[in-house]
Amino acid sequence: MQIGMVGLGKMGGNMAERLRRAGHDVIGYDRHPENSDVAGLDELVQRLQAPRVVWVMVPAGDPTRATIDQLCEALSPGDIVVDGGNSHYRDDKKHADQLGSRGIGFVDVGVSGGVWGLQNGYALMVGGDAEHVDRLMPIFQSLKPEGEDGYVHAGTVGAGHFAKMVHNGIEYGIMQAFAEGWELLEATDIVTDVPGAFKSWRTGTVIRSWLLDLLVRALDQDPDLSELKGYAEDSGEGRWTVQAAVDHAVPLPAITAALYARFSSRQEDSPAMKMVAALRNQFGGHAVASAEGQRTKGADAPGADVTPPVEAQH
Amino acid sequence: MQIGMVGLGKMGGNMAERLRRAGHDVIGYDRHPENSDVAGLDELVQRLQAPRVVWVMVPAGDPTRATIDQLCEALSPGDIVVDGGNSHYRDDKKHADQLGSRGIGFVDVGVSGGVWGLQNGYALMVGGDAEHVDRLMPIFQSLKPEGEDGYVHAGTVGAGHFAKMVHNGIEYGIMQAFAEGWELLEATDIVTDVPGAFKSWRTGTVIRSWLLDLLVRALDQDPDLSELKGYAEDSGEGRWTVQAAVDHAVPLPAITAALYARFSSRQEDSPAMKMVAALRNQFGGHAVASAEGQRTKGADAPGADVTPPVEAQH
Amino acid sequence: MQIGMVGLGKMGGNMAERLRRAGHDVIGYDRHPENSDVAGLDELVQRLQAPRVVWVMVPAGDPTRATIDQLCEALSPGDIVVDGGNSHYRDDKKHADQLGSRGIGFVDVGVSGGVWGLQNGYALMVGGDAEHVDRLMPIFQSLKPEGEDGYVHAGTVGAGHFAKMVHNGIEYGIMQAFAEGWELLEATDIVTDVPGAFKSWRTGTVIRSWLLDLLVRALDQDPDLSELKGYAEDSGEGRWTVQAAVDHAVPLPAITAALYARFSSRQEDSPAMKMVAALRNQFGGHAVASAEGQRTKGADAPGADVTPPVEAQH
Amino acid sequence: MQIGMVGLGKMGGNMAERLRRAGHDVIGYDRHPENSDVAGLDELVQRLQAPRVVWVMVPAGDPTRATIDQLCEALSPGDIVVDGGNSHYRDDKKHADQLGSRGIGFVDVGVSGGVWGLQNGYALMVGGDAEHVDRLMPIFQSLKPEGEDGYVHAGTVGAGHFAKMVHNGIEYGIMQAFAEGWELLEATDIVTDVPGAFKSWRTGTVIRSWLLDLLVRALDQDPDLSELKGYAEDSGEGRWTVQAAVDHAVPLPAITAALYARFSSRQEDSPAMKMVAALRNQFGGHAVASAEGQRTKGADAPGADVTPPVEAQH
Repeated sequence: MQIGMVGLGKMGGNMAERLRRAGHDVIGYDRHPENSDVAGLDELVQRLQAPRVVWVMVPAGDPTRATIDQLCEALSPGDIVVDGGNSHYRDDKKHADQLGSRGIGFVDVGVSGGVWGLQNGYALMVGGDAEHVDRLMPIFQSLKPEGEDGYVHAGTVGAGHFAKMVHNGIEYGIMQAFAEGWELLEATDIVTDVPGAFKSWRTGTVIRSWLLDLLVRALDQDPDLSELKGYAEDSGEGRWTVQAAVDHAVPLPAITAALYARFSSRQEDSPAMKMVAALRNQFGGHAVASAEGQRTKGADAPGADVTPPVEAQH
Repeated sequence: MQIGMVGLGKMGGNMAERLRRAGHDVIGYDRHPENSDVAGLDELVQRLQAPRVVWVMVPAGDPTRATIDQLCEALSPGDIVVDGGNSHYRDDKKHADQLGSRGIGFVDVGVSGGVWGLQNGYALMVGGDAEHVDRLMPIFQSLKPEGEDGYVHAGTVGAGHFAKMVHNGIEYGIMQAFAEGWELLEATDIVTDVPGAFKSWRTGTVIRSWLLDLLVRALDQDPDLSELKGYAEDSGEGRWTVQAAVDHAVPLPAITAALYARFSSRQEDSPAMKMVAALRNQFGGHAVASAEGQRTKGADAPGADVTPPVEAQH
Repeated sequence: MQIGMVGLGKMGGNMAERLRRAGHDVIGYDRHPENSDVAGLDELVQRLQAPRVVWVMVPAGDPTRATIDQLCEALSPGDIVVDGGNSHYRDDKKHADQLGSRGIGFVDVGVSGGVWGLQNGYALMVGGDAEHVDRLMPIFQSLKPEGEDGYVHAGTVGAGHFAKMVHNGIEYGIMQAFAEGWELLEATDIVTDVPGAFKSWRTGTVIRSWLLDLLVRALDQDPDLSELKGYAEDSGEGRWTVQAAVDHAVPLPAITAALYARFSSRQEDSPAMKMVAALRNQFGGHAVASAEGQRTKGADAPGADVTPPVEAQH
Repeated sequence: MQIGMVGLGKMGGNMAERLRRAGHDVIGYDRHPENSDVAGLDELVQRLQAPRVVWVMVPAGDPTRATIDQLCEALSPGDIVVDGGNSHYRDDKKHADQLGSRGIGFVDVGVSGGVWGLQNGYALMVGGDAEHVDRLMPIFQSLKPEGEDGYVHAGTVGAGHFAKMVHNGIEYGIMQAFAEGWELLEATDIVTDVPGAFKSWRTGTVIRSWLLDLLVRALDQDPDLSELKGYAEDSGEGRWTVQAAVDHAVPLPAITAALYARFSSRQEDSPAMKMVAALRNQFGGHAVASAEGQRTKGADAPGADVTPPVEAQH
């Protein structure tokens, strides 16, 4: 079927390609003219036959909002907009209402697959009304991986991005679990073949998984990861997962620990630990010793501070 | 080759069977006579030809210790004892020294695979000296899954159980991550097909894994897990992982969170939260209001306590 | 000076009383007529001389919003509204803008003190413009405790509630620390006089604090807290603290742990632990044993399941 | 009364001084001859009249063990050894048994107070048999702070150090709570007078405490703590608290978070986050892009990688 694709970056470009290979008629728009089939969103809309489907694959937040604002003006009743980016699930409701007031349908899709998706297919988590989702099935069928899994109609508008958000939260926790285990193995010298241990776990163990496969690949390339810095960004979805959990009084200790570990990794120096250090100085250490010197080192305290490196007990 | 197997429970029995199917000569001893090939450890040792290999597959702690004590008496120099149970890695060194003083070799093996191992093979993490490990290779080859993975000689004595311990720590973290994600999905009503979402994740996503496969099986049988109680035991290995990390100053926040969540799940009522409740009563609630009633409800405080359900700010 | 007080509950009523004792002219309005000096907000405004000060002390959220909406209509340019409730710091900006558009000033005040405030004074954290804050100083001076502390002009609009929110976040962490320590003492039988240990800590130790004093009071009344349930509510501020931290990429592991412990305490049964239990069943336990019985209990597996209570290793 | 004091460092020296000021006859031994009243432990024992009391105030572990070994040889039945250092509670039992086999009593004392103890007194948590504890009461009375608190006979041998250990665990949690609150205030620019906010909290709030007083002192000296590095050591007691909790299946999330934050603060670079970074590279980033370049940048994928900074979704 015919579809417009807005945003032909690493994700959108590959998805367009996968759809073309499956025989769909994809007209792409990208803000970089050299990669775009059309000059702008208006031309994109004109070249699509009504009822149109436009898949938006641009960064979440302002870029997605601006694109949907423009499409809301340019499209016609009966058309459908798909947001395949990483938007917050609460934005979906707003976008659906905005477009719906003009008779335009809206479907949110959480897309997983990264750079492997072109070849292997993209896992799709879909939110929206059945009438809109049904019309998009040929597209979903071509994007998703082979086999029975890799696709879910998770619920109404917002459910797709919510499911994807939780998927990413789980991903944070799993990555952290592997990372902690690796750190413990590296910190001790008991297991002398750490990459070998990870490799062995790929078969027959409880923790065999695609992330373990990737991790073995990473260790193949750099056995002690010495070429990397211990610095990890976080995308919005980890934060949103924690905030949604707090909103709903759901305890997420492991996923939150994973998020906080990334926050800490980006700090040159921990502000909180400055304060802990300050307190330790105050009740037992050198700072206080100097400030209170007359009290602890007076002539009437012959033994004070004689055993130099022993800190005062507190 | 010939091997003695001590402990023919769920694990040891299946492992003996897998070895027999591969053509090995397995003589088994179990404390339940109806399952045992021999009447006792002494008969087991007598029936094995020197140099012997005895694989111990009994619960960690006292049962393993007692078995090794007995074997230390009964075996001869040149024989090898394998501890395939879930012993603590520090016990391995003691057992190796004890047996080594009589010229008996010792190898520790962390075994993963559960009830699936008979068919699929057991992942093996092995610690010990090369000379002992090499002699056991035919056994390891038959027990391990097909393919190049599923086996590692992780280091000297203790390394096998240490690698297995860390594997289980990682397993705790991964299980907790999935469990938290599931709880968040269930606590909100945004995703209406939660089992469907998990099923969809089996293909094309970052979190595809054997544990996800098991989880989908569990949800197939009981879509909202309403037949289960939120009660989870922990085996020693999760605790040992955390304690080893603390010994080595390695932060393990996600794995520790997973362990603590299991501890909490087994408490009828949280003692710590009793104290939090007590403190909340003290600074703002009814308990204090009654104890301090004359202070807050005197005739000169006409407005005190008039808006009943609003708690005092603290 | 003259001041209108809206909301004469446990907090507002005592604060009005403390102000009257200090010689201020307080006109109070409460939705319960028997406690109110006036029939409604309009009468309150009429009875106050311009430029007026109205202190709002009602629950955060809708009640505060509705009160400010009404006051925005009824007050005049030059008047000041104070929000002394537990509003979210982001609402302060909205309220200040709304009132400011009509020339009415706005000051937010985080108030701490609970039922003890009438006698001891209320700690005040104030946000707003200097011109408004300065006019309120006689009120603040009378509400705050004696001595140089207990009051801060923390910044512009929102800073008062933000400081109070962080204060409460810290409070969560401290309460949790005491509660965990108490649980550990109770869970072991090493310290046989647990209330005595807490009492002893009140003097000379690093952890002496008002919360410890309250805790000793609680243990005096109920030495093992057996009359309480381990169930703890949370107010909005703990959640907001965590969410603000996530917004700003600040790791708050201990405060978040305190919040999550309260969430968990309110669950009859942990959903996450149901899933952990389900997974444990899948890879090693009875559920799988029955589903896969033919595989593990076949005639060719004589030793399977013979040692009953030993779970399969995974 | 007469007492021997072994170890005249910052703690032992001040304690000896406090005892002398109270009229006790203290004979001190320190390994630094210039601070010692005697040449060695033997001379110390000779100069004390039987039944003797020797208070050991040296670092935990080997120094304490060696001192007790020597005293066990030199002392006589009816004498008492006090371990006032930070020994692990399990060592107390060993020492009590060792000394008891020779008729020598043993009492363990957890001592809190730091450099402030000389003037204010030391909080004492005592473990041991009543007959030994009673004999030491004159010493305890002089060391402890004035007033009814600051002393507890917590239980039999080990209970003193266990109570002190838990005290320190709680201390970790409280310090962490303040530190996290401070970091959040510093990370946002909403509260513009952060030291002022902390100072204000000293009176009338729920979190007023000695640690807050110390923290205000620290901020007085260095308002943004810019002179300090975010690096915090941990003493054994924090680790032991967590390990004791894990032994007894007690969840300690906040105290453990405090301990782990200190561990992390001492790492130049987080090993775990190297692995997280490695995984992120594998499924979406540049490392994979280069490894898999032919797949994602081929001529048939015109749009691939055109929007440079947008990472692939996973």
